[in-house]
Amino acid sequence: MNRKMVFNTIGKIIVTEAALLILPIITALLYSETIPVFAFLITAVIALLVGGAFILLTRTKDKAIYAGEGFVIVALAWLLMSVIGCLPFVISKEIPSFFDAFFETVSGFTTTGASILNNVEALSHGMLFWRSFTHWIGGMGVLVFVMAIIPSTTKGSMNILRAEMPGPIIGKLVPRLRDTAKLLYVIYIALTILQVILLCFGGMPFFESLLHTFGTAGTGGFGTRANSIAGYSPYIQWVITVFMLVFGVNFNVYYLILFRHARQALKSTEMWVYLGIVAVSVAAITINISHLYNNLSDAIRASAFQVASIISTTGFSTTDFALWPVASKTILLVLMVVGACAGSTAGGLKVSRVVLIFKNISREIRQMLHPRSVSKVRFEGKAVEEATLRSVATYFAVYMVCFVVVFLLVSIEPFSIETNLSATLACFNNVGPGLDAVGPAASYADYSNFSKVILSVAMLLGRLEIFPIIIAISPSTWMRKYR
Amino acid sequence: MNRKMVFNTIGKIIVTEAALLILPIITALLYSETIPVFAFLITAVIALLVGGAFILLTRTKDKAIYAGEGFVIVALAWLLMSVIGCLPFVISKEIPSFFDAFFETVSGFTTTGASILNNVEALSHGMLFWRSFTHWIGGMGVLVFVMAIIPSTTKGSMNILRAEMPGPIIGKLVPRLRDTAKLLYVIYIALTILQVILLCFGGMPFFESLLHTFGTAGTGGFGTRANSIAGYSPYIQWVITVFMLVFGVNFNVYYLILFRHARQALKSTEMWVYLGIVAVSVAAITINISHLYNNLSDAIRASAFQVASIISTTGFSTTDFALWPVASKTILLVLMVVGACAGSTAGGLKVSRVVLIFKNISREIRQMLHPRSVSKVRFEGKAVEEATLRSVATYFAVYMVCFVVVFLLVSIEPFSIETNLSATLACFNNVGPGLDAVGPAASYADYSNFSKVILSVAMLLGRLEIFPIIIAISPSTWMRKYR
Repeated sequence: MNRKMVFNTIGKIIVTEAALLILPIITALLYSETIPVFAFLITAVIALLVGGAFILLTRTKDKAIYAGEGFVIVALAWLLMSVIGCLPFVISKEIPSFFDAFFETVSGFTTTGASILNNVEALSHGMLFWRSFTHWIGGMGVLVFVMAIIPSTTKGSMNILRAEMPGPIIGKLVPRLRDTAKLLYVIYIALTILQVILLCFGGMPFFESLLHTFGTAGTGGFGTRANSIAGYSPYIQWVITVFMLVFGVNFNVYYLILFRHARQALKSTEMWVYLGIVAVSVAAITINISHLYNNLSDAIRASAFQVASIISTTGFSTTDFALWPVASKTILLVLMVVGACAGSTAGGLKVSRVVLIFKNISREIRQMLHPRSVSKVRFEGKAVEEATLRSVATYFAVYMVCFVVVFLLVSIEPFSIETNLSATLACFNNVGPGLDAVGPAASYADYSNFSKVILSVAMLLGRLEIFPIIIAISPSTWMRKYR
Repeated sequence: MNRKMVFNTIGKIIVTEAALLILPIITALLYSETIPVFAFLITAVIALLVGGAFILLTRTKDKAIYAGEGFVIVALAWLLMSVIGCLPFVISKEIPSFFDAFFETVSGFTTTGASILNNVEALSHGMLFWRSFTHWIGGMGVLVFVMAIIPSTTKGSMNILRAEMPGPIIGKLVPRLRDTAKLLYVIYIALTILQVILLCFGGMPFFESLLHTFGTAGTGGFGTRANSIAGYSPYIQWVITVFMLVFGVNFNVYYLILFRHARQALKSTEMWVYLGIVAVSVAAITINISHLYNNLSDAIRASAFQVASIISTTGFSTTDFALWPVASKTILLVLMVVGACAGSTAGGLKVSRVVLIFKNISREIRQMLHPRSVSKVRFEGKAVEEATLRSVATYFAVYMVCFVVVFLLVSIEPFSIETNLSATLACFNNVGPGLDAVGPAASYADYSNFSKVILSVAMLLGRLEIFPIIIAISPSTWMRKYR
């Protein structure tokens, strides 16, 4: 373990976080919110000191980052970012409890959107901005951001990207990693600006448009109102529906559309399966809930919004879907697990993994019938390596194990099985709201501090796809002789 | 596909079922129950005619059974056995609805123990006997039985055993398959007799002792009273607790104890993990429920009974655990999924699969850290083949897919998520009672016929470990040219 390089890189990330705090400071200044300004300033200074110390104390010539280092960097960076990121809430006393503030910040960075706030409208503009901005930062990944802006001679940065980017197969868009990171952010920013414009066009104030776009782009779900998107016009709701789906698509597709051949982009199996699941789910839920609405278009809009929100693991809502019939709720629970596409800002298992799991099953059946035959699994026109298939199958297993462990741990709470189950799924898959006592109209406030920590860990496990965290906490990683 | 051999073998199984109906006929005669006697007689005649016709119409010299034939035989035989096995209930009008009778019979053969009866005590002795006897038949497997009693020159009978015996690795106890089948039944019958004696010794009437032993041996769960085992003495409850656990152990262990070295039997990793899970669960639930009981020994007895009942997928109960705190209920739900040991009569994923899944995960992590290293997974002192690991991972995936599909399909029912979730888990893992509206104090009577069929399929999927049924219903299996 190249410990120096690990803490050096983490130092850079914390300093970057300090720099990012400038934006909420400006926001708080614009709205003349004195206490928030100081809270952000103090936090920025702490971040600079901690990050700076890490960088200064760990100068090293050996800049190699291997797989182990990559995982540890990502896991520790995200943890430390959240610990520092929650300080403004605690210092300003807008969220006085550290556990609550930590939960809220982890929920932000991991783009979960689960909240312990029962009255979000009481927050200052500065805090609202920071809360939503964490979604935007966490969506594409802060390490990707660091790689995009800081010139680096680091060997093996790919190991960081691999650890932070979700999905079974990491595709570099262009040969150079730094250019890939830059391109991802260019697309991310372009789509963000487009959505802000479209929301402002629909009459949503600029501040709210910006924050809701942060929540959509990161597929997070924090908003500015207690009833989420319910109070906005159908136009606004449709814009957000479409953009939630858009941010759930593999960014590769947009790269191909923008810089190469749009035709090639249309060949993405994952995207079509994703849109197919959306279409079927919207249809099924519309039928199931139609009796609750006055006309079909309202039912379709409500169904489409919630399906887009859940499968993209955003977590906005236009209605309290916890009151929907059981069939609709069950479909939403399943969509939480599926999630959207790999290489997007969404959580969940990812559609490509689900597709590969199905292909793997059908291959296994073929092999049971013809034990001596050898058959390859193909995906998006290419043969899938056995190692990839194996790691998809293993990821699914470790995913279920983590789910069961978290579900068991939160079951000591005096809530219903439906509450605990949906809370576990909603946090672990970075969705946000669950059902019953943690439904869209409620919050996670009533969970104990113990469960808030467990669910925070679940959010981190979900966002970082489990392995980095397991590797970072396993002693053998740290004991390992460097080289 | 060697269709002739498929239907020939199925014919033999149906004739065997006709022969087995002699026992309930004798029971009904002993209790002078006229209508049941006729119901069983008519059913036996139908079985003889159908089975006989199959055998006579499909004479063939080519007795080869390949993997595909094995799966199809098992899937169709279990379906047909259930259709014929439910006729006595329908003909005698003790369960007038075909769907109800089919559900109850599938539940019997698959050793699930889920019931649509709200008043089991109204059944005649003959029907009670048949209902419990299906557990005993289904526990070890009727095809294993057929192989044990009928001399056969069939090539590839191993493919039937593989399809019917649960677990990731099929171990022949002795070189000859027929001897293995015989040995399994010898152990099964010996343990059955032992339990009947111990129950009679505790003051339970012979008839009830026999039926409860059938329910225990097959890890089924059908009993003779509406409140299951609650009304019996602590001695009886402990005897059943121990035997539920005993029938959840791989029968290999008993073979080694009886015929070879007891020491080797004690090296079974699976058994120790199984007993470890039991011990931890009993301790956790005892703590969680202790406030509900007057003294610790009652709490331990209730906890141990329910843990043994659920992990062995039997489904007997001494208390309405649907009223227990959420933590205990969640533990029970997880135990349903785990199940007991491979090579036992129990359902669920099986402990050995769970162990292999964990070993696979830890291997994957090692490989992420050292991409170029090659590491083998070892289990019970032997290196596990890659093909076995892959099929365990795939089985887990297909298991979850089936679970999700069944859960979605039954969610059209107007029950709670807890009810539907636990019903799906309880049927799919062959446990029986679930929680909430399908708890131990309730029944599956209120589910629609649609859901009863879906849950019956889930029980068959669980008992036969999914693949035989998928293969039997896939057209390509049938289209395939024979050789």
